[in-house]
Amino acid sequence: MKKVGILMGSDSDLPVVEKAIEQLKALGIPFEVHVWSAHRTPLEVREFTEKARERGFGVLICAAGKAAHLAGAVAASTTLPVIGIPVKSSTLDGLDALLSTVQMPGGIPVATVAIDGAQNAALLAAEMLAIGDEVLSAKLGEARLAGAEKVRRANAEIEAKYNA
Amino acid sequence: MKKVGILMGSDSDLPVVEKAIEQLKALGIPFEVHVWSAHRTPLEVREFTEKARERGFGVLICAAGKAAHLAGAVAASTTLPVIGIPVKSSTLDGLDALLSTVQMPGGIPVATVAIDGAQNAALLAAEMLAIGDEVLSAKLGEARLAGAEKVRRANAEIEAKYNA
Amino acid sequence: MKKVGILMGSDSDLPVVEKAIEQLKALGIPFEVHVWSAHRTPLEVREFTEKARERGFGVLICAAGKAAHLAGAVAASTTLPVIGIPVKSSTLDGLDALLSTVQMPGGIPVATVAIDGAQNAALLAAEMLAIGDEVLSAKLGEARLAGAEKVRRANAEIEAKYNA
Amino acid sequence: MKKVGILMGSDSDLPVVEKAIEQLKALGIPFEVHVWSAHRTPLEVREFTEKARERGFGVLICAAGKAAHLAGAVAASTTLPVIGIPVKSSTLDGLDALLSTVQMPGGIPVATVAIDGAQNAALLAAEMLAIGDEVLSAKLGEARLAGAEKVRRANAEIEAKYNA
Amino acid sequence: MKKVGILMGSDSDLPVVEKAIEQLKALGIPFEVHVWSAHRTPLEVREFTEKARERGFGVLICAAGKAAHLAGAVAASTTLPVIGIPVKSSTLDGLDALLSTVQMPGGIPVATVAIDGAQNAALLAAEMLAIGDEVLSAKLGEARLAGAEKVRRANAEIEAKYNA
Amino acid sequence: MKKVGILMGSDSDLPVVEKAIEQLKALGIPFEVHVWSAHRTPLEVREFTEKARERGFGVLICAAGKAAHLAGAVAASTTLPVIGIPVKSSTLDGLDALLSTVQMPGGIPVATVAIDGAQNAALLAAEMLAIGDEVLSAKLGEARLAGAEKVRRANAEIEAKYNA
Amino acid sequence: MKKVGILMGSDSDLPVVEKAIEQLKALGIPFEVHVWSAHRTPLEVREFTEKARERGFGVLICAAGKAAHLAGAVAASTTLPVIGIPVKSSTLDGLDALLSTVQMPGGIPVATVAIDGAQNAALLAAEMLAIGDEVLSAKLGEARLAGAEKVRRANAEIEAKYNA
Amino acid sequence: MKKVGILMGSDSDLPVVEKAIEQLKALGIPFEVHVWSAHRTPLEVREFTEKARERGFGVLICAAGKAAHLAGAVAASTTLPVIGIPVKSSTLDGLDALLSTVQMPGGIPVATVAIDGAQNAALLAAEMLAIGDEVLSAKLGEARLAGAEKVRRANAEIEAKYNA
Repeated sequence: MKKVGILMGSDSDLPVVEKAIEQLKALGIPFEVHVWSAHRTPLEVREFTEKARERGFGVLICAAGKAAHLAGAVAASTTLPVIGIPVKSSTLDGLDALLSTVQMPGGIPVATVAIDGAQNAALLAAEMLAIGDEVLSAKLGEARLAGAEKVRRANAEIEAKYNA
Repeated sequence: MKKVGILMGSDSDLPVVEKAIEQLKALGIPFEVHVWSAHRTPLEVREFTEKARERGFGVLICAAGKAAHLAGAVAASTTLPVIGIPVKSSTLDGLDALLSTVQMPGGIPVATVAIDGAQNAALLAAEMLAIGDEVLSAKLGEARLAGAEKVRRANAEIEAKYNA
Repeated sequence: MKKVGILMGSDSDLPVVEKAIEQLKALGIPFEVHVWSAHRTPLEVREFTEKARERGFGVLICAAGKAAHLAGAVAASTTLPVIGIPVKSSTLDGLDALLSTVQMPGGIPVATVAIDGAQNAALLAAEMLAIGDEVLSAKLGEARLAGAEKVRRANAEIEAKYNA
Repeated sequence: MKKVGILMGSDSDLPVVEKAIEQLKALGIPFEVHVWSAHRTPLEVREFTEKARERGFGVLICAAGKAAHLAGAVAASTTLPVIGIPVKSSTLDGLDALLSTVQMPGGIPVATVAIDGAQNAALLAAEMLAIGDEVLSAKLGEARLAGAEKVRRANAEIEAKYNA
Repeated sequence: MKKVGILMGSDSDLPVVEKAIEQLKALGIPFEVHVWSAHRTPLEVREFTEKARERGFGVLICAAGKAAHLAGAVAASTTLPVIGIPVKSSTLDGLDALLSTVQMPGGIPVATVAIDGAQNAALLAAEMLAIGDEVLSAKLGEARLAGAEKVRRANAEIEAKYNA
Repeated sequence: MKKVGILMGSDSDLPVVEKAIEQLKALGIPFEVHVWSAHRTPLEVREFTEKARERGFGVLICAAGKAAHLAGAVAASTTLPVIGIPVKSSTLDGLDALLSTVQMPGGIPVATVAIDGAQNAALLAAEMLAIGDEVLSAKLGEARLAGAEKVRRANAEIEAKYNA
Repeated sequence: MKKVGILMGSDSDLPVVEKAIEQLKALGIPFEVHVWSAHRTPLEVREFTEKARERGFGVLICAAGKAAHLAGAVAASTTLPVIGIPVKSSTLDGLDALLSTVQMPGGIPVATVAIDGAQNAALLAAEMLAIGDEVLSAKLGEARLAGAEKVRRANAEIEAKYNA
Repeated sequence: MKKVGILMGSDSDLPVVEKAIEQLKALGIPFEVHVWSAHRTPLEVREFTEKARERGFGVLICAAGKAAHLAGAVAASTTLPVIGIPVKSSTLDGLDALLSTVQMPGGIPVATVAIDGAQNAALLAAEMLAIGDEVLSAKLGEARLAGAEKVRRANAEIEAKYNA
């Protein structure tokens, strides 16, 4: 299976990114994690990205906050699909990172998920890899069923408590 | 090749969506276009979505404005990757559609592009289909080169005019 | 009397929703509470909603956060009045839920209350049920008088403290 | 049948309000229209509102822009359900009217619809009146079917054009 | 001297309002404080306001949060100058109260100060009363000098610490 | 009677400011108009402001757009009440001017009116001057009655058209 | 004298950028203009930037819209001061470009001017070059005097018209 | 070497400003720190600013919150480059300070950095001073290398932990 590459702009983004890592592990998808900043280590970002396809990556996930350029910078150097996670920082509640990630100009797309939405970034990566992969596709279907089942259990508790 | 499904919530979204159609045509990617509203025709949305994978779709693109639920409603019924295009309407400059599309809860991702970013939605769909497709991947690489070349020509004109 | 149905998208919304429950109890209005997610359990949402009128519901209240689609999804499947409570989550201070709930397209209304405004959702449901119900209408009038009286007592305390 | 009262804060709101009037006419719901400003004619607002229930009104719709207080002022004087339409004005794209209408304090609810969402205000009023009215309820169901049919026709045209 | 009337929409606004009270006391300006809600006690608001001029008030200060209608409701019933203090509440960081207070329609002005800006509301009231009052005007001049002196002392400390 | 001083930061603000001029003329209040920019002519702003009280001004109105510092700069040099009109410019719909005008720090108040709210700035100035002036106060009362009458006429027209 | 480098992300930014060009010409400052996109031609951006200091540039100005990464990408490759002009595009009124430009992470500064503020970008570049250049410094002083004079003339016209 | 002047509008801004001080110290750049408020001590602001160039300052840094006028007021009195740090205060998350600082009118530029971005303000000042200073320029280059190295170490740790 193709690997998922996870980049974060700063190791302070790790608490958010860990939810993506856990989700990929739960699905058995191989991945690599790196800290490469679009602004402080642009050469490493480029080098990693340009070799990503040949090194077996199928999707890249990028997490960054504030003027979050990492996903865009990565997307500029590859035609692999790039998923952007806008990370909330100490001001503006993540709106700056959201707009910096999602409002990409024509020609260079970034697939943006919710602010701090790392779990969904991993699921989206999995969905992309599952387009032609029935086994992974089935796993994703099971995860959906498990998600629904969790809601049903919560509902059962609430119903028992309030609708008696 | 897998097909791309394009849904729009209203035929008033067509001027935006047409840029996605043109881009898919330019890349030679098969597609289908439909108008299905998450709110006015929820059954058709579900029916289309639930059969999408078996009918040969690889990616679904959904365009909607205001409280833009279409992408989320589609994503709830499939594990195919779903791309959301927030469409600007008469108030709030597309911010409502952007937040309604991108801020999805954990478990059900939507790959969101820029407000009115239909061309990028098509390119992103193509990138997903190209993960395991060297021919399409090469076409995307050529499109990138063409995009860069277009910038170079614009630069040459501006340089000639101002830097003489 | 018709019942009020209360849906929340996640059991994490319960602390907000409890204010609606308390208010309905205080008014003696029968209700049912459920946890059904528009995205993770769309079938249950639809099933509940489609049978709501025949099962004796007069109004439905839906609470959800982020890209809050629950009220809209419910409204798409019934012509019972649907009240939406936008729930504040960890980013954007509830603005995402507010816009996702209130900016509904023509044809499918959602009666939106303030962010986290669960008490008012219950009162609004009661007002709807009281249109043709003089007893309930009188109770609502009394609740208003009690609300005014509470302000008067607060005023008396402040006056005593500052206007001596 | 109970009547619907429509108030607008200024006759400049009429182009928005007319969509509510048309919708009520289409459903055969009796209504009255007035221009009463919460700020310039507070006495008339109060007088109209306090007598509304006994004069046979079941629901009140209030449209206003900017610091849109009309719906809140009306809601303060009645326990009839009050629907607020935030009207877009020359600055801030209706965000001011939306927040002024929807962010009501506990105790005094306003059922808020989308910015300039007058058609939905009328439909919401109809849904409230239809809680105990099977004939009106059936009409609303037909309107939904018509709305869905309109989408289907649009879909058919688009399919014919693009999916040949 | 004319009195300043201070109204707050809820006693929960008192911590903000107390800064206005302290400032008025420091300037020796007579005042009265009341808790009257525009929505829960509209009659008391009107009654207080309509008699305010004849009861010797020169300026009215109104503090309220969320859909903050108090200042506007008061301004609708008097031609005394009305100062509005938008109060921050649990969501939206005071933006809702600011827009609800400041975006008044033509004809009914509200003099709006910063979110939670109660001290400035008191100073503004004092400036209005001081237009024709040389003694109060002199006091305000002294308060300005004291404010400047406080900055100078802070500057001296910082200079001593950093510019040695 | 004390005069009203009107400053605008640029002559491009004149179309907005003219509504203040017309309102002052209608009330017979003497005024002076100047174009002084806080940034391009700070000395003139200071000179005008420091002499304003002795030159017979009772209130100062300042209109400016973008990073609208004029009202704050004027308020820093006088204890006369200063009214700020945030002017909408080519971007951000006046939100920048609103926040730059209203969010003043403690000690230096600016009485802020709505974006482009020049008529209300003039009325507010008149209300301040009328605190101790029964003739002007009576004029303001008449203007309110005329405003109400205008609403009543609009109402009569709408009633005649729709409520037949 | 050092040169000013002007980069724009797209030739559609030229109408904004031209105001910077005119201002630099008026001050006699040598400059070069280029169209290089951070996303479509990242190599050219890097190449231009890395050689900028040795090629005699003293300051770089970057104009871009939407997820405006150009200034940040340039700043990542040089320690020359980089000025960012956020350019307004078809949605969100320039707020996306502003936040993408100004909210840079620690270590890599961008000197951001107002949305579409190209003239100020040029003046800021000139101020930087004038730190050690008395001739240019004097020119900037003259430009300020001319700016003040222009305000004075506007004031004289307005005074003549309104203060007679 | 020219000195950097640091002004803050209130000593409550010191925790933010200290990061600028530390950065300047680390680079060996001489500086002075002052607390001067644009609103409470406008004369001191002007006096400091007008003499700044002759006193050997090359760049001025201004930090202020809310309606942050300090940078603009300073920029109005000098043609030295002025850097503005918008400081987050208790409401609106720094958006008010950002817009008040960055949206300067044509003619008077302020080089704005991120909200609370004091370190970058210092680096930007250093970059300006380094335009013609090879020693300082080299130091800035080393600081960039150190910044990149820090990222590399963080990356090595993360790689060791997750990519084993």
